[in-house]
Amino acid sequence: MTHSVKLTFKPENRTVYVLPGTPVVEAAARAGITVETPCGGQGSCGKCRVEVLQGAAEPTAEEKRMISAEELKKGIRLACQSRISKSTIIHIPLESRFSAQKILTTGMETRKEIHPSVEKFYRELPSPTLGKSKADLEIIRQAFPQSFKADIHIIRQLPEVLKKSDFKVTCVFSDGELISVENGDTAKDSFGISLDLGTTTMVATLLDLNSGKDLAISTKMNPQVIYGDDVISRINFCLNNKKGLDELHYRTIEAINEMVEELAQVAKINPKNIYKLTAVGNSTMQHLLLKISPENLGSIPFSLAVKEGVEVKAKSVGIQINPQGCLCVFPNIAGFVGGDTVSVILAAGTYRNDEIQLIVDIGTNGEIILGNRERLLTASTAAGPAFEGARISSGMRASTGAVEKVVVGEDVEVNVVGNVLPFGICGTALIDAVAGLLRVGIIDETGKICSQKELKGKVSDKLLRRVVENESSRDFLLVEKEGTRSKRPIFITQKDVREVQLAKAAIAAGMKILMKELGISEEEISEILLAGAFGNFIRRNHAKQIGLIPDVVSPKIRFIGNAASSGAKLALLSRRLEKEMGDISKNAEYIELSTRPDFQEEFVEAMRFGKQSG
Amino acid sequence: MTHSVKLTFKPENRTVYVLPGTPVVEAAARAGITVETPCGGQGSCGKCRVEVLQGAAEPTAEEKRMISAEELKKGIRLACQSRISKSTIIHIPLESRFSAQKILTTGMETRKEIHPSVEKFYRELPSPTLGKSKADLEIIRQAFPQSFKADIHIIRQLPEVLKKSDFKVTCVFSDGELISVENGDTAKDSFGISLDLGTTTMVATLLDLNSGKDLAISTKMNPQVIYGDDVISRINFCLNNKKGLDELHYRTIEAINEMVEELAQVAKINPKNIYKLTAVGNSTMQHLLLKISPENLGSIPFSLAVKEGVEVKAKSVGIQINPQGCLCVFPNIAGFVGGDTVSVILAAGTYRNDEIQLIVDIGTNGEIILGNRERLLTASTAAGPAFEGARISSGMRASTGAVEKVVVGEDVEVNVVGNVLPFGICGTALIDAVAGLLRVGIIDETGKICSQKELKGKVSDKLLRRVVENESSRDFLLVEKEGTRSKRPIFITQKDVREVQLAKAAIAAGMKILMKELGISEEEISEILLAGAFGNFIRRNHAKQIGLIPDVVSPKIRFIGNAASSGAKLALLSRRLEKEMGDISKNAEYIELSTRPDFQEEFVEAMRFGKQSG
Repeated sequence: MTHSVKLTFKPENRTVYVLPGTPVVEAAARAGITVETPCGGQGSCGKCRVEVLQGAAEPTAEEKRMISAEELKKGIRLACQSRISKSTIIHIPLESRFSAQKILTTGMETRKEIHPSVEKFYRELPSPTLGKSKADLEIIRQAFPQSFKADIHIIRQLPEVLKKSDFKVTCVFSDGELISVENGDTAKDSFGISLDLGTTTMVATLLDLNSGKDLAISTKMNPQVIYGDDVISRINFCLNNKKGLDELHYRTIEAINEMVEELAQVAKINPKNIYKLTAVGNSTMQHLLLKISPENLGSIPFSLAVKEGVEVKAKSVGIQINPQGCLCVFPNIAGFVGGDTVSVILAAGTYRNDEIQLIVDIGTNGEIILGNRERLLTASTAAGPAFEGARISSGMRASTGAVEKVVVGEDVEVNVVGNVLPFGICGTALIDAVAGLLRVGIIDETGKICSQKELKGKVSDKLLRRVVENESSRDFLLVEKEGTRSKRPIFITQKDVREVQLAKAAIAAGMKILMKELGISEEEISEILLAGAFGNFIRRNHAKQIGLIPDVVSPKIRFIGNAASSGAKLALLSRRLEKEMGDISKNAEYIELSTRPDFQEEFVEAMRFGKQSG
Repeated sequence: MTHSVKLTFKPENRTVYVLPGTPVVEAAARAGITVETPCGGQGSCGKCRVEVLQGAAEPTAEEKRMISAEELKKGIRLACQSRISKSTIIHIPLESRFSAQKILTTGMETRKEIHPSVEKFYRELPSPTLGKSKADLEIIRQAFPQSFKADIHIIRQLPEVLKKSDFKVTCVFSDGELISVENGDTAKDSFGISLDLGTTTMVATLLDLNSGKDLAISTKMNPQVIYGDDVISRINFCLNNKKGLDELHYRTIEAINEMVEELAQVAKINPKNIYKLTAVGNSTMQHLLLKISPENLGSIPFSLAVKEGVEVKAKSVGIQINPQGCLCVFPNIAGFVGGDTVSVILAAGTYRNDEIQLIVDIGTNGEIILGNRERLLTASTAAGPAFEGARISSGMRASTGAVEKVVVGEDVEVNVVGNVLPFGICGTALIDAVAGLLRVGIIDETGKICSQKELKGKVSDKLLRRVVENESSRDFLLVEKEGTRSKRPIFITQKDVREVQLAKAAIAAGMKILMKELGISEEEISEILLAGAFGNFIRRNHAKQIGLIPDVVSPKIRFIGNAASSGAKLALLSRRLEKEMGDISKNAEYIELSTRPDFQEEFVEAMRFGKQSG
């Protein structure tokens, strides 16, 4: 077992441990930072520049071509080329990252402006005089050309705030509604929060609505996990407990309020100046957030209570931002294709492109998106759980103690999250392992772990010794429990390999069905985007090797990281994109794979490893 | 003192006591029933037919001309002609009444339909199937061509109600919003309430929104009266008590909820099927109803917090009708010209007429409206309090024990509300008394009560004995405290006459200013409408005699009773009229009399009794 090296990324100060030889781009992904690699990591575009602050590796030929000698001397490297050899600190500049702000500021022409639905205007209003007395609200109306709604709660505040401010106020509008009237000029204090409400993890980002910049980020375990790991157990909790829905809802709101408070403290702002929160998640999470029963999402025909986006006053669900601030929850596409998928499409821009994109987002479900501006297809497969550790003998999430990378050579090398003793294996390492074992022939094309007898002379002795013979099948010993190497032995069992086959077959067959529905071949796909935290960590060659994603040339494959979260930021920063997310939800087609007669056929076909037909 | 006779009106079963010889129309007004007299009570139009159920008076010549012999035999009479001689029961048919329903059903062409903003539709919806699953809200959207809003509270109910009802539901829309989805066909149960929120009295009427019919009525003292009789004392209570606004607001809501409950019980309906409440009052009452501080209405420049109409969910202010039902509060015109004036204009149709109407509504303030479809002027005078008993030596409201009518002949005859011993005098009787004393010369043109010496030989001895000489002035003894005649002696003092002069001068001068502003003379006024409970009781000749209203021929004068309440019903029953009330508020001009340099001049001129110049 090789000793891992410690990497710290600036400016976040996030630390990860990786095997020596790991490319910077991969290490960054493990730290949750998605570096843009438009050329697919070929070192040919020079867009992934980073600054290695101590002891940078020798530059590669590509780096020498793309980076000046002077810059090389300063430690500038390409994240896709430079490999880690020892513990160091690396600064990743904003320009090299995949981000919402970048989409808005450097994306296509029409997205150039930050133009949120929340706007603040300072006005010195005329005060009323006898005979020419105007109503308070009327005075404000006359100061703005556009018509707007005004809630009773705002009207109630007008007499006092106008008097106190001597009619010098800042008016805050959100989507055609006057939501706040503030004493004096507060126009510069305009904030919003984007919330990625994952089944497991919640990520809230505080944004400055004037500049579009991230100000602070807060992460929390979704408190619903104590009621079960997956959406089905949450739905069942609602079905089986009279107050179940209320409980899941209020726990979530509580956690959101803690994040709001934390964000405001870190950024030193007043939560009253947070006027909007955009939230995105799968449809069950979004229903629970709005205290809408998700019960119909748990059984056939898996129907939503609401598909369209929902806007409510944040306070009406107990979220403590500005009292008139709004909570904007993304629209869904179908029961299993939720707001998170709409958000990914929004961030990736699929719905505006002429060229065809394929997006795979492997979270708890595996969502597949295929299409362009003309037609957009979506599907969902139950592929996720295996890659999240479910049904895998030593499976676990990618948290501390998880083997997250496996390198199969003469022997097996592993890297462990948090640099501790391993006690399980997460999805990315499982793919590494299966791909590696497939490559050396320990696993054959049918997915069978071959016997020592079959393998003798074909693989190294070290590897051969790891094949453990059982009664009717074989397992592969990945990490021994021997001395201090592991808390328990970690195997890739024959059953584990079957689970990987089922999962990858589900996704691969889903893609095939969507391609067939769209009437295109693999070659017509201009790029493949891997979204989600998991997608971010996958080593693309391994994913291609096991047939999880089509075997296309690498430049066609891009990681877009937590694109759902990016979409939530976009909707917060641009009223136009907020509107477009509604169009995406309306126009995207949902293909129910289980009702397609050809799905089973494709599924069986895709169970095999190696080059797929079609 | 003549003995009063008892009259009962059907179908309300309302009882009043009146002096023998009182016309039926006047007695009905005292019972709160406004009989339409398009000809001004000349007996020439035949529109005020009533049925005298026992011992009808001999028909007059006019009645013989307008009514067939057969009908006369059945007791059919004209309310304007027939006079009461003894206790009896009279049925007043709907056709003879001034009512909102009549405006809608028999008014001008464009008003013919009852078309409320609340609509109910029964639908049998398609249930979702796998692969063609639609979201619950989407299924409802597809059943209706028009787009609509749907609140989160409704969305939350959808999964359960659709399942329970097997997708057979009644959808309730209000003003473009889906406000209720009900199990099965409930389309026939559609109700609304119109609320006349007076400073003193609250009147709530339950209406069937399908037929437009009144179903029940509930009346209550405004609970705010314990904080003071007039709006100024209520405003001061808010200013001087931290929780004053909350207290006034919640007391009012409490009273409204009691009325809602009573109405629902009487009509045997479920309050959940009441979907809308339209409320009208002066601007202070409307502010308090919405828990908006009225403090700026108490001091110069008397500005409103909100002028436009306000719609809120009824539950947001605690009103217990359908949880998504709405409270619709009328728009105002100015600080002292509130929603009640808008409502009067709506009911009278002034804003649609070619001919010029003058409307006088004497409540706590005296509101004056003058104009037509081209231009509409409004003003407010502080005339009301005197006619409501304030600042009058024996003044009181027209409640039990109040002298409500005075007939000056050889001696003085009075009628008392409730047929009990009198202990005060209300506004109508005050006008009767002043007009009567003016006619016989006891009061001269300057308003002076003449001395016995001056009057000797000119008036009857009985009247002369009632003039009481003081040091520098004289009072007139209206009712003696002698034996059982009265609990205390009731005087018309010299000061009382001055108060009447001030009040009538304020109104008369206000009218003059409005006429001048509009550039018209008295002759160009096509009709004078007397609105409000007080206006309903005034005897028009006496009002003309003291100069409270212009001295025009009687057919030009119509009583329109509680027109504010009628307007609230109209807005409830017709979405078009509801919209038009917004236009009235926007277009009507408010003339601030106190800032007009010519007002004082007109005011001094109008202090005199007798024919005014101009």
